[in-house]
Amino acid sequence: MAETQTKDPVIERLRALLGERLSTSAAVREHHGHDESYHPTHAPDAVAFAESTEEVAEIVRICAAHKRPVIPFGTGTSLEGHVAALHGGISIDVTAMGQVLEVNAEDQDCRVQAGVTRKQLNTHLHNTGLFFPIDPGADASLGGMTATRASGTNAVRYGTMRENVLGLTVVLADGRIIRTGGRARKSAAGYDLTRLMIGSEGTLGVITEIQLRLYGIPEAVSAAVCSFETLDGAVNTVITTIQMGIPVARIELLDEVQMDAINKYAEFDYPILPTLFFEFHGSEQGVQEQAETVGEITGEYGGGSFRWATLQEERSKLWQARHDAYYAALALRPGAKGWATDVCVPISRLAECISETKQEIEASGLLAPIVGHVGDGNFHVCFILDPDDKAEMARSQEINDRMVLRALAMGGTCTGEHGIGYGKMDFLTAEHGEAVSVMRQVKQALDPDNIMNPGKVLRV
Amino acid sequence: MAETQTKDPVIERLRALLGERLSTSAAVREHHGHDESYHPTHAPDAVAFAESTEEVAEIVRICAAHKRPVIPFGTGTSLEGHVAALHGGISIDVTAMGQVLEVNAEDQDCRVQAGVTRKQLNTHLHNTGLFFPIDPGADASLGGMTATRASGTNAVRYGTMRENVLGLTVVLADGRIIRTGGRARKSAAGYDLTRLMIGSEGTLGVITEIQLRLYGIPEAVSAAVCSFETLDGAVNTVITTIQMGIPVARIELLDEVQMDAINKYAEFDYPILPTLFFEFHGSEQGVQEQAETVGEITGEYGGGSFRWATLQEERSKLWQARHDAYYAALALRPGAKGWATDVCVPISRLAECISETKQEIEASGLLAPIVGHVGDGNFHVCFILDPDDKAEMARSQEINDRMVLRALAMGGTCTGEHGIGYGKMDFLTAEHGEAVSVMRQVKQALDPDNIMNPGKVLRV
Repeated sequence: MAETQTKDPVIERLRALLGERLSTSAAVREHHGHDESYHPTHAPDAVAFAESTEEVAEIVRICAAHKRPVIPFGTGTSLEGHVAALHGGISIDVTAMGQVLEVNAEDQDCRVQAGVTRKQLNTHLHNTGLFFPIDPGADASLGGMTATRASGTNAVRYGTMRENVLGLTVVLADGRIIRTGGRARKSAAGYDLTRLMIGSEGTLGVITEIQLRLYGIPEAVSAAVCSFETLDGAVNTVITTIQMGIPVARIELLDEVQMDAINKYAEFDYPILPTLFFEFHGSEQGVQEQAETVGEITGEYGGGSFRWATLQEERSKLWQARHDAYYAALALRPGAKGWATDVCVPISRLAECISETKQEIEASGLLAPIVGHVGDGNFHVCFILDPDDKAEMARSQEINDRMVLRALAMGGTCTGEHGIGYGKMDFLTAEHGEAVSVMRQVKQALDPDNIMNPGKVLRV
Repeated sequence: MAETQTKDPVIERLRALLGERLSTSAAVREHHGHDESYHPTHAPDAVAFAESTEEVAEIVRICAAHKRPVIPFGTGTSLEGHVAALHGGISIDVTAMGQVLEVNAEDQDCRVQAGVTRKQLNTHLHNTGLFFPIDPGADASLGGMTATRASGTNAVRYGTMRENVLGLTVVLADGRIIRTGGRARKSAAGYDLTRLMIGSEGTLGVITEIQLRLYGIPEAVSAAVCSFETLDGAVNTVITTIQMGIPVARIELLDEVQMDAINKYAEFDYPILPTLFFEFHGSEQGVQEQAETVGEITGEYGGGSFRWATLQEERSKLWQARHDAYYAALALRPGAKGWATDVCVPISRLAECISETKQEIEASGLLAPIVGHVGDGNFHVCFILDPDDKAEMARSQEINDRMVLRALAMGGTCTGEHGIGYGKMDFLTAEHGEAVSVMRQVKQALDPDNIMNPGKVLRV
């Protein structure tokens, strides 16, 4: 490993601190230099496997002393190149910070270390009658989910990480440790640093602990799948459901391309048609009431009959199919990479936005299934492509550009849940204009040497 | 008006801009120098009645050029001295900015100017089937509610301003105008400047427009009042209701001192006992289900029978009684001032926190009824006192200090919804420690000359 032969003072000091928990192996560095997207690998100079907040602080202090970049790493399941070490530096891997520090069942909250994944937390909560609902598909770390303001399939009912994080422990660029927020359900005490850190993608600090809201497991849960003759019919069902205020827990759209992929990937036999996946949470009576109303709405928009899944096992299978959508789409073209786009629009514009985009995809000849957390107005076109094929990339880029500008013109956002990373910085400016310069002022105030995940979110 | 005889360049320039909409009259200045609390008046040098965002920006630019303080003013119903011109300067009154700019009924959102009050908005929404739920009692301006991160009686179900503001237009300390957030229900695009501004109390910028979430008026609404033999019984009813996840819309506590005040103020005949006010929202069936379950819980904790109010008129009367609590308490001692404290704790500690505090009040001989948005763990001891009586102030201060420290030790906050103003700056440090220095870094980055509502939230 030639890169460690020259005396690198940061590496030397980190090795003294961490011993074998500092790795400069090519394989480990490569693994930490990319996420699940098509973005190319940028390996860090070394990977530090931290075990505590204090250790993260010490690592950051060492890096700060040498103005060396720091890139936090959870499970590497981000989608806009968030973990890429664009300017080298040290990747801080928090997977060893996997403790659930407290569960306050009576108050329905808990505190976890940043490396705990959402599935690990829910396993830990087994037998408490509580669960953590935010579900971005991947079994992501809660630190990463906080840093990217993640959401996913349950957000239409339970909100996103923004609504479900009560407080944080954060290591700042100079190694200071702060605690933000608290356990009270609301507070008007000072600036909302918790929300400032949520979605800051490691550019303002390293999140090491998270206080989270939990929810009682609903008395009744019921899931259903329904196919539609047209994409518009499916989307209009969603719009009407949301406008009527039905507290549906999940309402997911998959287009016919995606359904075909899922059938092939997991041996399902769903009709190859635009399809909605629903989940209802509530009392027995409440769930029945919701299901009946939604059933009537689907009928009005040309939906077929509901395929129900009430048993836990059936529901798990159904949602596994939804969660595997990305991998199923990738499997349609072995060796290809996925580029999951991520616009979100006001619900009244959703049908229009999806349908115009879909027409362009069809005209382009690209393979690009559509899935969406449509209850929030959020959908993903997933280009299945060869990133080395410049023409294909250019056509995808063009469709994505037009889709983002379409979404912005409709009052939407360039990213509903994936974040900016380094893939969407131009769109951030298109969306927020002068406000981006305020974000930059905040960044410069808290990280004057630009060592915290540099090259992401903002150009400094 | 001696104070305007000397040529003050800021006043001169503002007069040129605003004409008669700049006032230096003693009465107008006095009115803008205090809120509804016991904090003494600090009159601004002048009051600028702005009519648009651009005008606010021009006013701020003039003040910035002369490093003159700027204090935003809505309805003056804050409770921690937020509007006091501690260092002189210009009060920007936004009451003339009273337009509802758009209502997007299909998307359940709207955009208002900062001077629109919550009641004005709900009147405007008449016949849309929608309403804005956040209700702090006073008919406050939505700009002020945003600036103080207000909440109130409906927060237990609908959240606070933090959860219900989608985006903002803000004038910064240098006169720049930014728009934050957007109309999409969720976004992962960049730092959450919207939430940074919510609760910043005018110290980071002047909020001039607010994009708000709206909600469908529930199919059924039902309110009820229930008395309890003991305060503990009432509080434990609340705790159990919340822990069971019953989606109650409002659940308010008033102690026997407060009930006595209300009876006298508004000629009610409620029992002089600790009392809960409930409101249930939902479908006919859902409301009935909620009411039955809560009925069973109250029975377990020694609650009496429910006094129901299902008609709109009866409900209005009931909630008017709750909203008048502060004025009713003041009326117990003519000429006295009110000091409404505002701690908020995790729900599991609520009974303990209230009961220890209540014992100290009783031992002190002070007049201090307790009311609370107890579904959130938030309650207010309202000292009815003569601020010029130093001994009385000292005793109240002592009880409040102990109560805040008690709340913090329980994982709570020094202010659930009133904000810091200049009344609670020491408690902010007690609560957030080192994080306060990060708030200060943000403040200094965005307002280097400290002209935005100086002396509030943070010592700079």
